[in-house]
Amino acid sequence: MKVSGQWRRSIELAGDHRSVIVLDQARLPYEIQWMQLAELAHAARAIRDMHVRGAPLIGATAAYGVALAMRADPSDAGLAAACATLGATRPTAINLRWALGTMRAALTAVAPADRAAIAYAAAAKICDDDVAQCEAIGRHGLALIRAAAARAGGRAVRVLTHCNAGWLATVDWGTALAPIYQAHEAGLPVHVWVDETRPRNQGMLTAWELVQHGVPHTVIADNQGGHLMQRGEVDLCIVGTDRTTRNGDVCNKIGTYLKALAAHDNHVPFYAAVPSPSIDWTVGEPHEIPIEERDGDELRYVRGRDATGAPARVQIVPAGSGVANAAFDVTPRRLMTGLITERGVTPATQGGLRALFPEAAV
Amino acid sequence: MKVSGQWRRSIELAGDHRSVIVLDQARLPYEIQWMQLAELAHAARAIRDMHVRGAPLIGATAAYGVALAMRADPSDAGLAAACATLGATRPTAINLRWALGTMRAALTAVAPADRAAIAYAAAAKICDDDVAQCEAIGRHGLALIRAAAARAGGRAVRVLTHCNAGWLATVDWGTALAPIYQAHEAGLPVHVWVDETRPRNQGMLTAWELVQHGVPHTVIADNQGGHLMQRGEVDLCIVGTDRTTRNGDVCNKIGTYLKALAAHDNHVPFYAAVPSPSIDWTVGEPHEIPIEERDGDELRYVRGRDATGAPARVQIVPAGSGVANAAFDVTPRRLMTGLITERGVTPATQGGLRALFPEAAV
Repeated sequence: MKVSGQWRRSIELAGDHRSVIVLDQARLPYEIQWMQLAELAHAARAIRDMHVRGAPLIGATAAYGVALAMRADPSDAGLAAACATLGATRPTAINLRWALGTMRAALTAVAPADRAAIAYAAAAKICDDDVAQCEAIGRHGLALIRAAAARAGGRAVRVLTHCNAGWLATVDWGTALAPIYQAHEAGLPVHVWVDETRPRNQGMLTAWELVQHGVPHTVIADNQGGHLMQRGEVDLCIVGTDRTTRNGDVCNKIGTYLKALAAHDNHVPFYAAVPSPSIDWTVGEPHEIPIEERDGDELRYVRGRDATGAPARVQIVPAGSGVANAAFDVTPRRLMTGLITERGVTPATQGGLRALFPEAAV
Repeated sequence: MKVSGQWRRSIELAGDHRSVIVLDQARLPYEIQWMQLAELAHAARAIRDMHVRGAPLIGATAAYGVALAMRADPSDAGLAAACATLGATRPTAINLRWALGTMRAALTAVAPADRAAIAYAAAAKICDDDVAQCEAIGRHGLALIRAAAARAGGRAVRVLTHCNAGWLATVDWGTALAPIYQAHEAGLPVHVWVDETRPRNQGMLTAWELVQHGVPHTVIADNQGGHLMQRGEVDLCIVGTDRTTRNGDVCNKIGTYLKALAAHDNHVPFYAAVPSPSIDWTVGEPHEIPIEERDGDELRYVRGRDATGAPARVQIVPAGSGVANAAFDVTPRRLMTGLITERGVTPATQGGLRALFPEAAV
């Protein structure tokens, strides 16, 4: 997608064809800076400290992390250690485990001397597959927006989204935002309500993406969405997912559940955009998903620009107050209108998901 | 309540017995500064720019604003102008209209020469009545916390609150926090989940109050409460109200509705603390309440402390993005477990409210 007018991916192979460059999302949108990942430790740190974020991009970065590790130590022990290091970075997004499993499957039977080359190819394929999945999700989601547009009678379709499930969260296109980009390119008027998404304010990443593409949008406090739905100002909600149970429950950025409740209470359709690598076929119920508890400083401090325009942060929570910072919640399947996968839209049920993905093993 | 160990009210008559001093809540908790209101325009500005805030305190400040105006121009025209100026400052909190109505009723039949003295007495009575109402709300709410404590079997009762309905929002004690303070003083262990309450972060005022009084608490992002309720980590919710319909719908700080939905979905009791001046007997349905839309800069900028500890703000919303900033939402009565008034706890129904307040005229 577009960065300052140029088409880029969120993760790219560097000119040296060895290291990997990613857009540093811990700095965005206040600084645009690409960072180079030259070894396993860089990739692991980039994921853990959220220089890259978003379940699909975490998976892609982990894949390249394995490739970087194979250049240094392609032994069985090296492969196991790389997967262990990367697997421990973040607990909730299933794409991480999925990508590592895919890489391991591609490399285990291969002679160590050949592993690096095959790892790079496998990582590149994970990235290309992600782009294709996101594009397909965009196509299927576009049909939902088209249907809403028919009901809207000429005015813009108003879509609420939470967090950033845009191209920054994937390799390209995004999941929840892919239908919006495709609608915008198709000339369908859309307007996006962008949840700020405290504590890390990933809504600002969404806003930044939408500015780059000229998509009309309004940033709102996370508290605002329920009121907008009560007033009939939201036509549909689309969010991403970090892990989807085989029954269709959606674990996504903290606060998603509250918006799903409001959508349900006001008869607003509520969809998650679900690329198949985000489905955890081994998990059936919400409580089985580990929820990451992150550093309280994410809540204590807010990043932005100071009066001179320079990146800065302020401490907002008074000393002496405790903080808690769970990063995800789970929206139960009963609140989901449907799941937008790369193979089409399905009700949030095991039957629906299995009909689309009959090859799922578990 | 306590400010740096000293017992103070949020609004007090100054030593000159003419002007009024208030704790500047636009600076809290990063600076503790009292500001002097010496004339009508000061009082109006303090309300409009939220140097004072919270429905009961807005009412008290408006009452003293009339008294200040009567010193300058006690004519009928002066009284009408003062009420018009103060009445136009903020649209949602009904206490403002109620306090002005009370002042007008006390002054209209009085000779202009006597109006200033009577206005000061009437304003002081509004303040004293508010303290008494809040104390009574604390007493009735304490019974609810006691009941929760019996179920909790020794561990702390975990109360979630949104915004600041503490003593800063009133003259003393607070509404939603009054039961918590009384429980704490009675030796009942309580722990407060404090919603940050974007965009203005009034949760930091609540946290600051609780620090001053040594009440255990944890600040959380507004997105977090639903997840905590799903996990069984909230025993009850208590919020304030800016206007309550005669049928028991509660208009309160934006985001309250989302927490009420989550409480309902997880069988967590959800109460509003409702002093009678916040009941609008002329309004029966949520859509009749005007919702204040405030300046988008409240969302664009976040206040806090910079690295040196000095008060500072950062701009968080990228240029080029629109913002929206409705300040309140309405929680429908069907989601309220009950209303805690100064005369006891009632279901959120017209019958329940009228049984407690049979003298209500409309």
